Amino acid sequence: MSNKITLSHGNGGKHMRRLIEDVFAKHLSNDLLNTESDAALLPIQNQQLMTTVDGFTVQPILFPGGNIGSLCIHGTVNDLAVSGAIPKFITLGVIIEEGLSFDTLDKVVKTMAEAANEAGVKIVCGDTKVVPRGQGSEVYFTTTGIGYKTSVVDYSTKLIKPSDKILISGSIGDHGAAIMLAREQFGLSGNLKSDSANVISFCQSVYELEGVRFMRDPTRGGIASVLHELNQATGYGIQMNEADAPVHDEVTTICDMLGYEPYYLANEGRVVAVVDASVAEQVLAIWKDIDHGENAAIIGEVTEQHQQVVLQTELGGERIMHEFMNLG
Amino acid sequence: MSNKITLSHGNGGKHMRRLIEDVFAKHLSNDLLNTESDAALLPIQNQQLMTTVDGFTVQPILFPGGNIGSLCIHGTVNDLAVSGAIPKFITLGVIIEEGLSFDTLDKVVKTMAEAANEAGVKIVCGDTKVVPRGQGSEVYFTTTGIGYKTSVVDYSTKLIKPSDKILISGSIGDHGAAIMLAREQFGLSGNLKSDSANVISFCQSVYELEGVRFMRDPTRGGIASVLHELNQATGYGIQMNEADAPVHDEVTTICDMLGYEPYYLANEGRVVAVVDASVAEQVLAIWKDIDHGENAAIIGEVTEQHQQVVLQTELGGERIMHEFMNLG
Repeated sequence: MSNKITLSHGNGGKHMRRLIEDVFAKHLSNDLLNTESDAALLPIQNQQLMTTVDGFTVQPILFPGGNIGSLCIHGTVNDLAVSGAIPKFITLGVIIEEGLSFDTLDKVVKTMAEAANEAGVKIVCGDTKVVPRGQGSEVYFTTTGIGYKTSVVDYSTKLIKPSDKILISGSIGDHGAAIMLAREQFGLSGNLKSDSANVISFCQSVYELEGVRFMRDPTRGGIASVLHELNQATGYGIQMNEADAPVHDEVTTICDMLGYEPYYLANEGRVVAVVDASVAEQVLAIWKDIDHGENAAIIGEVTEQHQQVVLQTELGGERIMHEFMNLG
Repeated sequence: MSNKITLSHGNGGKHMRRLIEDVFAKHLSNDLLNTESDAALLPIQNQQLMTTVDGFTVQPILFPGGNIGSLCIHGTVNDLAVSGAIPKFITLGVIIEEGLSFDTLDKVVKTMAEAANEAGVKIVCGDTKVVPRGQGSEVYFTTTGIGYKTSVVDYSTKLIKPSDKILISGSIGDHGAAIMLAREQFGLSGNLKSDSANVISFCQSVYELEGVRFMRDPTRGGIASVLHELNQATGYGIQMNEADAPVHDEVTTICDMLGYEPYYLANEGRVVAVVDASVAEQVLAIWKDIDHGENAAIIGEVTEQHQQVVLQTELGGERIMHEFMNLG
C-alpha cells in the first residue's frame, strides 16, 4: 500500500474501507460508531438537544499546540458549551486532497481522538471523500456536534443590559499568532502555542449561575468580532480596557512586527462571557481556579455612554475598535 | 458588491454576514435557524434519534436533474430513510472556493431549499468557509441529518438469510451516467437526467412491514457496491439477474460507448431492499404504486449455492460481478 492517499481511497471500494478501518476506526472507535452503517442511533433520554456545525480549513494543518484534528473537536464542542449544552456526540465529514500522507492523517486523527476523549464526546458517524490534487488543501473537516442543553439560562444577547461586565477566560490571540508563525515561517520560534482546547469546564462552571447573559468563543475574527456582535445585537456601546486585556508578550511582539492587533486574532480555547455586574467577580474567581484560567480577566463592560465598540488604551486615550482587520 | 465570492466573505466580518443573509438565510430560513447563534435547540420529544453525515464534492456542481444543492439533501435524508428514520433536521457545512459566482451559489441554495421542503427537513444551523482558488472546487457541502427512528425493524445485514429477495425501487445508473455526460461533454444530449430524489416514501411505505431485513441507497460504487456489502456482511452468495435489472436505454448506450457497466454507477434516488421472499411481491407492488416507482423490480436473491456476487446474464450465462470498476 502506498503511503499517500489516492483517489481510489474515495471510491467506495476496498481501498476506502481500508482507509476507514486503518485510520479512522482505529483511533475513533466507540460503542456508537459503526463504520458499516449509514446512520447511528443516539442514546438520548429525555434530553433537550442542541446542535452546531463547523468547517475546518486551517493552514497549516499542523501547528504548535495542536492540529486540525484537535481543532475540529475543540471548535465544535466549544460552540455547544457556550450555548449552554454539554457536548455528547460528533459527526465527522472528511474531505481529503489526493496526495496526503497516511502518516499525517494518522497523526491528525489520533489527536482528534485524544481531544474527543478529553471533551467526553463520541464520534458517532463519519464520511470520507477524496478530491483531486489542487481541489483541496491536505484535509478539511466538517464536524457537527450534538449536546444536552444544561444551563438554567437560555443565553442570549437579548438579556444583555448596560453595566454588564465582559470577561474572557484566558489570554488573547495565541491561536491566531501561532498559526501566523507556522504559516509564514518568519524564522521565529519560542513558546508560543495555539490555545486550542475545550472550554467545557469554564462554561459548565457557570451553568447554574444566574446573571450570566451570554457566552461566545471568540474564534474567527477574534475578540473584536464578538464585541461587534454584542454591539450590533444590543445597540449598546461596548467598552474594552486595553490594560485589562491579557495578551502574552510573544503575541504582542508578533503583532507589532506584522502590524496586526491581537483583538482580531482567532482564539480556539477561550470564552467571552457577558454577566451581570453583581456576579462578575464571582465568575472571575471561578474561572481563575480552573486549569488554564489563570489569565482570566474582566476586560470591559456594556455602556449607554456611546453606541460603539471603544478601546480604552493603556495610555488613557480612547479609540474606535473597527469590526474587522484584513489579515490577508 | 462583486458578483464573485472572495476570501473576505469567509473572514467573520461584514461580507460574511451579507453572504449568509443574502444567500443562505434568504432561501433556507425557518423557525429553528438562527444565523446569529452558535447552536440550535432541537424540538425533540421522546423520540429515538438517528444521525448520519455525508460530504458532497460532485463535479460538475450543476447537472441535468439537479445540482449539488439538491443532491446533498437527498443523499443525507436517504441515509436516514434507509436506516428506518424519518429525516427532520439538517446541519450544513459549506466550503466555497474563492471565485464562485453569487448567481451559481444562489441557484444551488435555492434548489437545496426546495429539496429540503420536499423532504420535510429543516436546516437548523450552518457554517461557511471560503478557501483560496485552487484549494477547492466551486463548492463542497457536508450535511449531517438527524431523524426520528420509526421502523418496527432494526434493519441490519444480520437479519438476512438465504432465499431473501433483493429489490430496487427504480432504474439503475441514471445519476452516474448523467454526471459522466455533464462532465465529459461528449456532445451527447437526450432525456437522461440524474435520479437524484429523496426516497422517503419508498422507505416509509415498508417501515411497518415485517420481513424487510435491510435497505441501502446505492450511491457511490453503485448497486455492485451494495451487493458486495451484503455478500461480505452475510457470507452468503448474492445472485443478480441482468434481465430483471431496470436500466434505461440511454444509460446502456453510454455505458457501452465508454466501457462501463451501469451496476457501478451511483444512484441518488433509489433504494435497494433485502426482504423475506414471502413479502417480496408485496413490497414490489407497494413501490410500483409510488411516484417514480414504476421501474421497481426484484433483481436478485440471497443464496447458499455459492459465496460470491454473481450476475446471471441475459444470455443465460453467469459471471462474477467484481466489487469495483475504476471509473478513472
